Amino acid sequence: MLSPAQLDEYRTQGFLVQERVFDEVEIRQLKDEAAQEFATGGERVTVEADTDVPRGVHGCHLHTEAFGRLVRSPRLLPVAEQLLGDQVYVHQFKINAKRAFKGEVWEWHQDYTFWHHEDGMPEPRALTAAIFLDEVTEFNGPLTFVPGGHGSGEIDAEVEGEGWANTLTASLKYSIDIGTMRKLIDRNGLAAPKGPRGSVLWFDANIPHASVPNISPSDRGLVLITYNGVRNKIDLARSTRPEWLAARDFTPLEA
Amino acid sequence: MLSPAQLDEYRTQGFLVQERVFDEVEIRQLKDEAAQEFATGGERVTVEADTDVPRGVHGCHLHTEAFGRLVRSPRLLPVAEQLLGDQVYVHQFKINAKRAFKGEVWEWHQDYTFWHHEDGMPEPRALTAAIFLDEVTEFNGPLTFVPGGHGSGEIDAEVEGEGWANTLTASLKYSIDIGTMRKLIDRNGLAAPKGPRGSVLWFDANIPHASVPNISPSDRGLVLITYNGVRNKIDLARSTRPEWLAARDFTPLEA
Repeated sequence: MLSPAQLDEYRTQGFLVQERVFDEVEIRQLKDEAAQEFATGGERVTVEADTDVPRGVHGCHLHTEAFGRLVRSPRLLPVAEQLLGDQVYVHQFKINAKRAFKGEVWEWHQDYTFWHHEDGMPEPRALTAAIFLDEVTEFNGPLTFVPGGHGSGEIDAEVEGEGWANTLTASLKYSIDIGTMRKLIDRNGLAAPKGPRGSVLWFDANIPHASVPNISPSDRGLVLITYNGVRNKIDLARSTRPEWLAARDFTPLEA
Repeated sequence: MLSPAQLDEYRTQGFLVQERVFDEVEIRQLKDEAAQEFATGGERVTVEADTDVPRGVHGCHLHTEAFGRLVRSPRLLPVAEQLLGDQVYVHQFKINAKRAFKGEVWEWHQDYTFWHHEDGMPEPRALTAAIFLDEVTEFNGPLTFVPGGHGSGEIDAEVEGEGWANTLTASLKYSIDIGTMRKLIDRNGLAAPKGPRGSVLWFDANIPHASVPNISPSDRGLVLITYNGVRNKIDLARSTRPEWLAARDFTPLEA
């Protein structure tokens, strides 16, 4: 569980890093599992634009025991429940590869825009735990946030293309326009949390974030687990995406 | 002139930052001149791929008094002469825009590869002074170097396309392959020098460098002045590029 100071930091900034939550042995196992998922994930694997370089693989917690256990870890689940004030389930699970020399830019966006418009999530009472499969440095494309930017709530997004397949491409279906981002960043600044392998970065459903390409020889693998409160379960009648992108089983997780 | 410690740092690292060499008033004037050059430079202006966003403008020292004076500044010229151990002239002059939210990636490359193969420069006895028109931060696409990487000399480059026009595009004509960069960076690491407006970053002809996109609301304008020793003047019979990319006047500059 988080301390009051950590809780306060998360509420104010919209993100929080816990260093070395998982050890080297655990991370090595997760990396091995991740490599297998990239190799066998089929339609659940996305690639960098105009290449066959893997960009992400989704829904792994439904397909492998290791990731099924990870989302129920006593080092993650109670924190997610604490931050959301609810029992939780996994709305979305993704491994983001950000390969050495290959991982490309992600535009400025809020995750909640996708969950709201594509999946029928009623409120932004969800969050993501990013587990660092590799050390995150200044040079391998760290997630970059506007501290406190979640306080603006859901920001009108520019919409590009139609259909849910577009939510997975490098040119994101929902991105925030430059004028809005300029105002937000001029006021709040930017932060790109770094940390060793095994660290966990918690971030709010509404915090604007982006990342630059990875120009380094080090992969920047992240496991991204999106926990949603069971009271905030999605409206299946409004959900457009398959189960490996937007869960339909709202049973609360148990550690 | 540089101190022995600064000289040593430059020789070892292949780059050196001097903070606040030019003051706010001087930088504001240079920025105004730069804006005019982007507006009127014609063929000397390059754009980001598939856009009309200005990426760079060349040869401004031949077209405006302000930049003509800048390359002869007593704060730059004696340092260039000291570092090159020769009288010098300007081989190439460029303003690099790296616009807020627009500036794109530059691949790993060595400048000397271009000067050698396209311009007939005999030896890597040249260097570049980068004058910061804006504060350079972690977030606006700083130049990123392999410290000491100039010690590897000229590295075989991957060649893409033909003709000199290709030397100006986002997908560079000469770039260093990933395997080579991996070895170099694993051994030497990476560094992205930051600094306030008006700082000067000196870097070697052979130091491998790259930069990521600018995802911030702050431009990252640089004036890049490439000084070459007069004893290292290019072979005009081998030079392929127009004078605004590769000077044909080797007269030593005077402060």
